[in-house]
Amino acid sequence: MMKDVLENVMIDKVARNFLQSPQKRNKIHEADAELIDTGNGSDKYLAVTTDALVEEVETRLYDDPFLIGWMLAMANFSDLAAVGAEPLGLLLSLSFPSSQDERFIAKLAEGISAACQRLNTFVLGGDTNQGRELFLSGCAVGLVPKESAVSRMGARPGDKLYLTGPAGLGNIYAFLKLSGKDKLLKGSFYQPVARTEEAKIVREFAGCCMDTSDGVIHTLDTLMRLNRCGFVISSDWDRILHSIAQQVCRDQTIPPWLVLAAVHGEFELCLTINPRNESAFLRAAANAGWNPVLIGEVTTGMSVSIKTPDRIVPLDTGQIRNLSSTMGSEPERYVRELFDVARKAGI
Amino acid sequence: MMKDVLENVMIDKVARNFLQSPQKRNKIHEADAELIDTGNGSDKYLAVTTDALVEEVETRLYDDPFLIGWMLAMANFSDLAAVGAEPLGLLLSLSFPSSQDERFIAKLAEGISAACQRLNTFVLGGDTNQGRELFLSGCAVGLVPKESAVSRMGARPGDKLYLTGPAGLGNIYAFLKLSGKDKLLKGSFYQPVARTEEAKIVREFAGCCMDTSDGVIHTLDTLMRLNRCGFVISSDWDRILHSIAQQVCRDQTIPPWLVLAAVHGEFELCLTINPRNESAFLRAAANAGWNPVLIGEVTTGMSVSIKTPDRIVPLDTGQIRNLSSTMGSEPERYVRELFDVARKAGI
Repeated sequence: MMKDVLENVMIDKVARNFLQSPQKRNKIHEADAELIDTGNGSDKYLAVTTDALVEEVETRLYDDPFLIGWMLAMANFSDLAAVGAEPLGLLLSLSFPSSQDERFIAKLAEGISAACQRLNTFVLGGDTNQGRELFLSGCAVGLVPKESAVSRMGARPGDKLYLTGPAGLGNIYAFLKLSGKDKLLKGSFYQPVARTEEAKIVREFAGCCMDTSDGVIHTLDTLMRLNRCGFVISSDWDRILHSIAQQVCRDQTIPPWLVLAAVHGEFELCLTINPRNESAFLRAAANAGWNPVLIGEVTTGMSVSIKTPDRIVPLDTGQIRNLSSTMGSEPERYVRELFDVARKAGI
Repeated sequence: MMKDVLENVMIDKVARNFLQSPQKRNKIHEADAELIDTGNGSDKYLAVTTDALVEEVETRLYDDPFLIGWMLAMANFSDLAAVGAEPLGLLLSLSFPSSQDERFIAKLAEGISAACQRLNTFVLGGDTNQGRELFLSGCAVGLVPKESAVSRMGARPGDKLYLTGPAGLGNIYAFLKLSGKDKLLKGSFYQPVARTEEAKIVREFAGCCMDTSDGVIHTLDTLMRLNRCGFVISSDWDRILHSIAQQVCRDQTIPPWLVLAAVHGEFELCLTINPRNESAFLRAAANAGWNPVLIGEVTTGMSVSIKTPDRIVPLDTGQIRNLSSTMGSEPERYVRELFDVARKAGI
């Protein structure tokens, strides 16, 4: 099932013949970060993950070096948060062309540093190279108590589906930026913070968890394939979408659900909660001054649907995901195709 | 002092404003891998490192995908070995152009897998992207008992200077490959193995340790600057250089010491041993069926010299290192300049 998604084909092509470590607690695709039992009587797993910014920089979706640095760090820390891990820090693997502007490098480092400080964590080290192209990769390490580690596995029909916060800012940012409408952006509304703090509560209650780095629908498509379950999303957009996303959808006549469907996410955590644990979860969140956003529920059958006031509309999430793999480098065509999907689905 | 070396200028430019983690046990530049105290009562440090193959691939120094994969893994594991750490595994951050040949990817993965199996370790996970250029980065994690962790700090005048094995294959490989004389290569004589096993003995006895990934002279230059000490290298090339390196030096009339001076190393460990511990170190090595190679000793005064039968020749190692930073992308000019340095030094 995972192989029906083009981006997984590449991963499997590389990983096909790799032996699995007996110390690794998750299988391939089954967690945002790898969970390693380091032995030695530790009551925590080591969580490790790596993430590079490639398409986002090449398409100039990110062109502000501070934002690039911030996102490089946050994307990695978000993967740690999704397994419940608290960061020990970040390693950087950076390659700059010899012509690279010094101010760019300084601002990039500033963004990385600011992101680490925001989460009370650190750059631990790294490797810098000179190469033909700019290349930016990170690797985050962290720890999670063994008994609270979460993965993408564990969604059960009947579970409630939550986000750590309202969705849609990632795709709104991308839409405005890539369609040259970024004059409409007031200040830097897109500067996501990995949900490291919320993760400490999430890991105590969630069935499964995955971040929305590639958008909510992409996340649900993955969770559907792994857990062989379905999801029904509410169309209560006032509650589910960030107020800026709602505003831009109105102004630009974008069908609201498309800001869940496109591939540039907002780095919220998406999690399932057994109804038995729901009130305790919400109480713990409220005590921490945090409001999780209920967006739907887990169902039997493998599909992702949107529940409108009068019907339930199934989405072809495989097709939606593969649009981003085949057209990710042609943003205008990608957006056109997404609008087409919305028109055909009638929502 | 570290800032007199061009490659460190870039690192410092990026790292200038990063806060240091209170859990990190080494300062910047002072260890091949970062040593992290994870707390929690563990008697081991977490060791983490990241290394990308950029110049080696762009210059086509490595063009066999199996070797590229092998080196990507081994370069990272070698950094772990240099702090005494045993690997938990490797993360991969890979970016391929959409046109990338499938056979290339399969062979690359084979090389990575073979290197991991050679060291009884594993690929733990990774991130694959599609980008304009091929980009290959790794990140290795491991553990080292706290009381035996080693770093680049700790060389003392009077210490003996050892390598884990004879030197020179890295630069001989590079010389033949880049000068188009690789028809002289019989089979794959360059496929270094990180000294993970030897490191378990090294860490019990060494004052300081650093791998020779950038060649022996580059390593000694770094150790000199960090420890504010000097090194005198013996010119007993029959013992110090690998037999293939000796043979090629004779056939191609290369001054033997240049295979220590150029920037493509052999991934041995370079370490210092207090004379008091030398016999115990050699006994432990012999019991493990391993012969460390004595190459010189640590002196007062900050210089790296070669001791010939009739004199001691000081080397301008800063100049030698900076040649590789400024001309690394023009191999022919780089080799010419190195021969020039040898002629002027008269050795």
